[in-house]
Amino acid sequence: MADQYPPPTEDYPTTERSRVRRSPKRGTHGRADVHAILDASPLCHVGYVINGAPYVTPTLHWREGEYVYWHGSSASRFLRAAEDMPVCLTCSIMDGYVLARSAFNHSVNYRSAMVFGTARLVDDPDEKNHALRQLIEDLFPGRWDNLRPMTAQEVKATSVLRMEIDEATAKVRNAPPGDIDEADYPVWAGVLPIRSHLASAETAPGMPDNIELPQALADLIASGRIR
Amino acid sequence: MADQYPPPTEDYPTTERSRVRRSPKRGTHGRADVHAILDASPLCHVGYVINGAPYVTPTLHWREGEYVYWHGSSASRFLRAAEDMPVCLTCSIMDGYVLARSAFNHSVNYRSAMVFGTARLVDDPDEKNHALRQLIEDLFPGRWDNLRPMTAQEVKATSVLRMEIDEATAKVRNAPPGDIDEADYPVWAGVLPIRSHLASAETAPGMPDNIELPQALADLIASGRIR
Repeated sequence: MADQYPPPTEDYPTTERSRVRRSPKRGTHGRADVHAILDASPLCHVGYVINGAPYVTPTLHWREGEYVYWHGSSASRFLRAAEDMPVCLTCSIMDGYVLARSAFNHSVNYRSAMVFGTARLVDDPDEKNHALRQLIEDLFPGRWDNLRPMTAQEVKATSVLRMEIDEATAKVRNAPPGDIDEADYPVWAGVLPIRSHLASAETAPGMPDNIELPQALADLIASGRIR
Repeated sequence: MADQYPPPTEDYPTTERSRVRRSPKRGTHGRADVHAILDASPLCHVGYVINGAPYVTPTLHWREGEYVYWHGSSASRFLRAAEDMPVCLTCSIMDGYVLARSAFNHSVNYRSAMVFGTARLVDDPDEKNHALRQLIEDLFPGRWDNLRPMTAQEVKATSVLRMEIDEATAKVRNAPPGDIDEADYPVWAGVLPIRSHLASAETAPGMPDNIELPQALADLIASGRIR
């Protein structure tokens, strides 16, 4: 499928909806920039509208080319409400507190991506199976084939939504405080970096002694990343 | 102001909007539960509607009693769009990946709070000043009084929004995989805990040698928490 996607060097369109107004130097519509942020954050927040009112639901998402996916129970109001509707899916990573010499110049180092499109239910069985496999494999490479296979009932009880990215904006701040005009003011300034990592694995109760933590998971923990 | 708030043991109302449908055993409308999640996560995602379409913007928030606050540039479209409008503000903390023996039983340990209300611009100067002070002090106790004071122009260039919490839901999962029926399936299962912490402070370029990292910030870094 990969070759049907636009090349990642081509930007998303700049529209009234997605144009970066505030701090435009922090913003980009570059596909590679948007993809990198989506991929770095397993958690996203999906915004949708019911009866004119906004809802924001946290969920895991994954990406394949120009499509983002998320899933849940087939009975979920959240998934049903988003189907065939305009959606804004936002990923945000806080990389650090930026402490300046004035309150006004305090900031946050962050990476965020807002992507817009229309959510569609994945109803083709093969595509749904492929998508659920990707969810697991993106987080834990090699795990899917070792799992107890999904039953037909489990697949039926799971809904997968897919959204082609119509428009998108990435914003990044990654810098020390921007208050160099007041560098002689006598208070400490700098960045407190925020890091997320995986702590030691907690084996499920009752696990047989001969089943050890797979090397791929040990490597993920050791990497200092969360995906 | 504190004594005008409802006692935190009284739940938020259970409404059509906020009733927990999926996995109701994970959900609560308890005020103390909602407050604890809002307070543990400095980052929130604010959902609002422009021309019928959803937008989700990440920002810092802070809370005082039954009010949540966020801020930004007075010229921000995001803030202007939310003013006097229904808003959904969601905080989510991923506490761990839950790896089960089947794909279906994989999950996430998390804490999330969705709060609903109507955003209002804080235009009283004293209240605005108090709110901005709270933003700094909540994150970095003792810092505000050591900063170069805000100028009138800076206060004017900053907008603060305040939302009284009308309805709210908290959801929490904090458990090993729930697949004990298949505990003899030969694949590792358990939890990979996710932790966020502050790394070593990065002092701003050009900081005079006699200005050291304040003890309160050193203590925050050493705590292993991010707020």
